[in-house]
Amino acid sequence: MTTSTIQIIKSNQTRISEVDFNNIPFGRIFTDHMFVADYENGEWKNMKIMPTGKFEVHPANIAWHYGQAIFEGMKASKDIHGRPLLFRPEMHAKRINASAHRMCMPAFPEDLFVEALHELVYLDQAWIPPIEGSALYIRPFMIATEEAIGVKISNSFRLFIICCPAGPYYGFPIKLKAEDKYIRAADGGVGEAKAAGNYAASLYPTQLAVQEGYNQVMWLDAREFKYIQEVGTMNIFFVIDGTVVTPSTTGSILRGITRNSIITLLKDKGINVETRPITIDEVLESYKKGKLTEVFGSGTAAVIAYVKEIGYKSETIELNPDTFKIASMIKNTINGIRNGTIEDKFNWTVPATPQS
Amino acid sequence: MTTSTIQIIKSNQTRISEVDFNNIPFGRIFTDHMFVADYENGEWKNMKIMPTGKFEVHPANIAWHYGQAIFEGMKASKDIHGRPLLFRPEMHAKRINASAHRMCMPAFPEDLFVEALHELVYLDQAWIPPIEGSALYIRPFMIATEEAIGVKISNSFRLFIICCPAGPYYGFPIKLKAEDKYIRAADGGVGEAKAAGNYAASLYPTQLAVQEGYNQVMWLDAREFKYIQEVGTMNIFFVIDGTVVTPSTTGSILRGITRNSIITLLKDKGINVETRPITIDEVLESYKKGKLTEVFGSGTAAVIAYVKEIGYKSETIELNPDTFKIASMIKNTINGIRNGTIEDKFNWTVPATPQS
Repeated sequence: MTTSTIQIIKSNQTRISEVDFNNIPFGRIFTDHMFVADYENGEWKNMKIMPTGKFEVHPANIAWHYGQAIFEGMKASKDIHGRPLLFRPEMHAKRINASAHRMCMPAFPEDLFVEALHELVYLDQAWIPPIEGSALYIRPFMIATEEAIGVKISNSFRLFIICCPAGPYYGFPIKLKAEDKYIRAADGGVGEAKAAGNYAASLYPTQLAVQEGYNQVMWLDAREFKYIQEVGTMNIFFVIDGTVVTPSTTGSILRGITRNSIITLLKDKGINVETRPITIDEVLESYKKGKLTEVFGSGTAAVIAYVKEIGYKSETIELNPDTFKIASMIKNTINGIRNGTIEDKFNWTVPATPQS
Repeated sequence: MTTSTIQIIKSNQTRISEVDFNNIPFGRIFTDHMFVADYENGEWKNMKIMPTGKFEVHPANIAWHYGQAIFEGMKASKDIHGRPLLFRPEMHAKRINASAHRMCMPAFPEDLFVEALHELVYLDQAWIPPIEGSALYIRPFMIATEEAIGVKISNSFRLFIICCPAGPYYGFPIKLKAEDKYIRAADGGVGEAKAAGNYAASLYPTQLAVQEGYNQVMWLDAREFKYIQEVGTMNIFFVIDGTVVTPSTTGSILRGITRNSIITLLKDKGINVETRPITIDEVLESYKKGKLTEVFGSGTAAVIAYVKEIGYKSETIELNPDTFKIASMIKNTINGIRNGTIEDKFNWTVPATPQS
């Protein structure tokens, strides 16, 4: 049940003049408005777009104690005519609800989620940086809001959508450490959900990897430390003998929307794609035989991140991202679809327009 | 580095008259005061005891997005002379720092942690319920406070200590479901830390177990679903052939302070205790041979929770808690130490006193 009206309370002033679009610190500057909705007594209510700002919170906020918190990450771009474009918003609406289900949080109506994105991005479209490779990063998230100590499912929740302008992310090729001690997630756990706790768990092993000179961790499975899972906060792709291989998402791996877009594009271009379990040993062996030609990560923030090195125990895989034909083709295609210079044959982009 | 002074700002009024000590809803009523400290620029500062209340938070609070949040749970009781007693506060000071380490959060000086507990519990001692089995539940917790989107270690944190009066917890014997699909934690993960995300991950499987008529989940290991880990949010003990067995804490199991107290007491009383891996199959086999005489959970909130049933696939273990000699002896001993009627030979209790 919902009261299906989004109230719009416009800010009296804009903070946009404070931003240097050529030098945007990621995730620290927020647009003028945010979307907020409250879940109480089994119902979503008080849906509104309002000036972005602080609100009063009790220290017993149950999300801080027991981690009932999920999020999405998505981007809006401008096409060559300056129109704000959303990218596959309905996929994010579905995915936040899949995360909500696993974390015992209420589903948010998908049509209202998409409507809120339209209204918010349309209203704050001036915040989409006009610079190539830049975008508006959109962060929908839901937190438990009950004020109670004691492990339980919260009886109230709040959904937010906040936005920040973002320059190019992971612009440089990365070095990965294949991690054989720590894990991000395990089968039977919450790795498939975009749950807050998954990210906190990754900080310590990532810190260790960075101290060893790497940029990110390549996660292996929790049972045998053999099967490749993800990279940092991205999905991963290997090009072996002309075939693109990416791990199948069977429970502990996030179902990336960029991952899905890449698979769709590869198939469309007639490139062979396999989604299946892949071990670090297979990757190493392919490398030694000269068959491993490209490795890249994929995610909303990075779109594509080229991998130039993977360290695994005493072994090192070294690659030259300048030779990555498939990765660069995919990156250019997705960016082209996002800015309207390449035909959007799958109807992934949709202009943000006022809904009322 | 710390500024080692705790400022005390007393509330002008008390809310204690609003509480019915005979009927306390767990974790919903908070005492008049809380302790707060801020970590900024590599330093703990602004340490103060102040009236419990809300504070302003930005929606980009990084703890909500990436789950960098840990907590402790402990209890204060009153002895027969009405003095407020802390229970092993230095163990909690150490454990919150162990959790902090795994979650890339700063350690809080142990002496200041204990000092804060003394001051706060002394000040709010009227909130310790005078009723047998009741206590003051103390909740120290630390959250990331940076306002930023982007997976990273926060550069600022806040430590709180809030308290609530609590009646007897888990007063009834419980039914457990040995869970062979979902997990709480895995080796290489953060199961040993009291991290917020661990608790959110447990909600869905617990909900399923409750729908099947159980009270709590008995967690098995993530690799083989054979080795018993924990029960709900408690450690677990089995009495087999007169020997008490509890799983060894080798990474994915919380190092319970009540667990530690129980092991110490059992050894002191000459009862054989084994901390070692134990499988669900061993427990079932012992039960079938008539050698399994007691099963109980242990934790700060419950102290001891008697287990009357364990379901595992098509098998059921049924026990009669009225016959649990060791569990009841331990429960009475710990409660007696807590209220000063049994000699505290290990110096676990310490009267809360003003430190300045």
